[in-house]
Amino acid sequence: MGKMGIAGNLIVAQSGGPTHVINSSLRGIIEAARELDQIGTVYGARHGIEGVLKEELIDLSAQSAEEVALLRYTPTAGSIGTCRYKLRKGQDEDFERTIEVFRAHNVRYFLYIGGNDSMDTANKVAELAHKRGLDLVAVGVPKTIDNDIGDSEFKLIDHTPGYGSVAKYWMHAVQNSNEENKGSCPADPVLVLQAMGRKIGFIPAAARLADPARELPLQIYLAESNCSLEQLADRVNDQLRQAGRCLVVISEGFDVGKLGEVRDSFGHVSFGSSQISVCQTVVNYLNQIGLAAKGAARGNVSGTDQRHSMAYASSVDLDESYNVGRKAAQLAADDTSGFMATILRDPGSIYSVRYDKVPLEDVANSERTFPAEWITESGCDVTDEFVRYARPLVGSDMISLPMIDGRQRLTRFEPIHADQKLEKYVPQGDRK
Amino acid sequence: MGKMGIAGNLIVAQSGGPTHVINSSLRGIIEAARELDQIGTVYGARHGIEGVLKEELIDLSAQSAEEVALLRYTPTAGSIGTCRYKLRKGQDEDFERTIEVFRAHNVRYFLYIGGNDSMDTANKVAELAHKRGLDLVAVGVPKTIDNDIGDSEFKLIDHTPGYGSVAKYWMHAVQNSNEENKGSCPADPVLVLQAMGRKIGFIPAAARLADPARELPLQIYLAESNCSLEQLADRVNDQLRQAGRCLVVISEGFDVGKLGEVRDSFGHVSFGSSQISVCQTVVNYLNQIGLAAKGAARGNVSGTDQRHSMAYASSVDLDESYNVGRKAAQLAADDTSGFMATILRDPGSIYSVRYDKVPLEDVANSERTFPAEWITESGCDVTDEFVRYARPLVGSDMISLPMIDGRQRLTRFEPIHADQKLEKYVPQGDRK
Repeated sequence: MGKMGIAGNLIVAQSGGPTHVINSSLRGIIEAARELDQIGTVYGARHGIEGVLKEELIDLSAQSAEEVALLRYTPTAGSIGTCRYKLRKGQDEDFERTIEVFRAHNVRYFLYIGGNDSMDTANKVAELAHKRGLDLVAVGVPKTIDNDIGDSEFKLIDHTPGYGSVAKYWMHAVQNSNEENKGSCPADPVLVLQAMGRKIGFIPAAARLADPARELPLQIYLAESNCSLEQLADRVNDQLRQAGRCLVVISEGFDVGKLGEVRDSFGHVSFGSSQISVCQTVVNYLNQIGLAAKGAARGNVSGTDQRHSMAYASSVDLDESYNVGRKAAQLAADDTSGFMATILRDPGSIYSVRYDKVPLEDVANSERTFPAEWITESGCDVTDEFVRYARPLVGSDMISLPMIDGRQRLTRFEPIHADQKLEKYVPQGDRK
Repeated sequence: MGKMGIAGNLIVAQSGGPTHVINSSLRGIIEAARELDQIGTVYGARHGIEGVLKEELIDLSAQSAEEVALLRYTPTAGSIGTCRYKLRKGQDEDFERTIEVFRAHNVRYFLYIGGNDSMDTANKVAELAHKRGLDLVAVGVPKTIDNDIGDSEFKLIDHTPGYGSVAKYWMHAVQNSNEENKGSCPADPVLVLQAMGRKIGFIPAAARLADPARELPLQIYLAESNCSLEQLADRVNDQLRQAGRCLVVISEGFDVGKLGEVRDSFGHVSFGSSQISVCQTVVNYLNQIGLAAKGAARGNVSGTDQRHSMAYASSVDLDESYNVGRKAAQLAADDTSGFMATILRDPGSIYSVRYDKVPLEDVANSERTFPAEWITESGCDVTDEFVRYARPLVGSDMISLPMIDGRQRLTRFEPIHADQKLEKYVPQGDRK
């Protein structure tokens, strides 16, 4: 710890839903910080910004190099935790408390791993710190499976760390599900697979990577497809007539209309995925309108496994997430406050990226949508242009997981924490 | 094709739900048959016994050695197909047609890959063939993820091909889900994972393989747990008080009682998993009774991916399934009709198995249950004895999948079929 005294310390926090590769960005930060004289101790905030507010800080510099290296093979945010708690306007006490904690622990660098909202928060924290006379360097680290950070022209960021792995998951899921559907088609000719991504279509679109030549009876419905349940059923019926079977990949954000309505045993009417999934609604509808005569429709709702089924992590995504983390640490050491580390694609047909920085404010004020021109006219597929965009992100091979006694060898940090120096504090905001 | 004329041909058919490794048994049969002089052409019945009835027979002997070898890495029954169609008592026409097809194609060997019912069917087909003067050799090849073939003392078969891979899938699913739950626990402290297995608990029990030392806040509910939804909720609450979070693995066959009742938008009351899953019912219930105050319960319903997510296939299961297929071909060539190829575990602490035969009739007349003594007194866990039984079946390492252009390289058979020699026939039975 020879750097202490001359160097400022660093706090890294994570926000929102995890990914296969969020720990790779964390690893990049920890390993780069070890090489950077400006950065002293790296603390991980337990469960995101809540950990900052509660002064629950894991000493990441004190962890063994082996456990840090194993972060590459450890999915989701279990190592230091994430949260759904958000600092918002009006939560002045929380903002002030954050500054107080930074001051108490000689924190000069704040790295926030998250989505658009988190970039906004990081920016606001830095602004307040400067007002309060604290020379804080805030740097954002992008992360989301939804690929919805930045702009729709891919100028602020080409793609987000986390997306490549969920895309790879879906590529394999469709390949393997197609074998299932092909094998069982006389009895179960329709298989409906529900994908994450909320209202943005990058995740379900990745199903096309399983079949770029369009040889499979595969239909893909994004939330943006602008297609009714009746139209979907018509197209599925057409496919059944042609191919005898059909694979449907559908966004969890697809609008199923009134058919999404169910009543629970208490008689309450409930909407949306909390009570019944889009997938189940589609499957029920297809069976109700008489598809059952030709065999049954079945559905799979992939849950959080699409963002943590580690065997399907993309090697490209793992490498890039790591490099983005390193880049963020370097930006911090260079006193480049108010920026997000980013991935920009080089022009040309051979895939390569460079790591750069973009202002947090630009990211916070942007909104990405799925390019309308990447949805086919039929509304149930995506174009070759999308495939060219997404294909490099999944890499070429499976990764190899370290195993001990038949199980995955995952990072296990020692419970070494920073001393608590302040009074206890109860966070003032709500969990979203 | 030098063996034709002197040798009898072989038909292999698959029945019921697929597994990661069903194609490995098929490969074992095809490759062994090539070495056995008694066996001529190997035909695969398209979609199981329906393919026999309709005389839809794929010529497997004409396929390239490479495509046959790739069956190891190709999940489920897509290569020749399976079905839910069953030959039952009273379907005399179907049985007679089967014999007619065998005769027309010089079939001397019938290998049926399936569960208990299929072993019974294979036996009945052989009996009728003998009555009709056809010298048919029928051999059963065990297959099911549920591990419910044979007896409860594991004397007829130690474990079924297919079970080791779904067990491995669950081991990894729980390891990775635990990271997810640990990382997101303040907001989402309860994660409910629904496992297949119908009314028998071997699949959910495999969740324990993720944590043999019982370090995780993991509860496992089999259909046999004899535990109410209220008791489950109490135990989850206890775990939340102790650990702040809880992972629940629950069988799709768990009895949720009246709370499984939902109404669709047409006002119809529906029961069971066709409308709402056990998992969703449990999640809704936990949230309704006030767990939401501490954060939300969430659920994952793993679908057919648990039997086809190929990266998680067990190398032990793949090898054993292949060897069982080879054994079945050898039994056929040796004129050993009326038997099932089986896997028996050798005594001793070092895991090893031998391949043997057991009478089809014994298998058909047996029923396996999950050993009651393997369920802990609490009703929400399984014992170390279960772990000792199941641990060797998942192997020690991940398998490596062949990839081309970023996608899995799966078997693609050429559409080479036997000539249809008989009149068209419409199968008389129902699909189950």
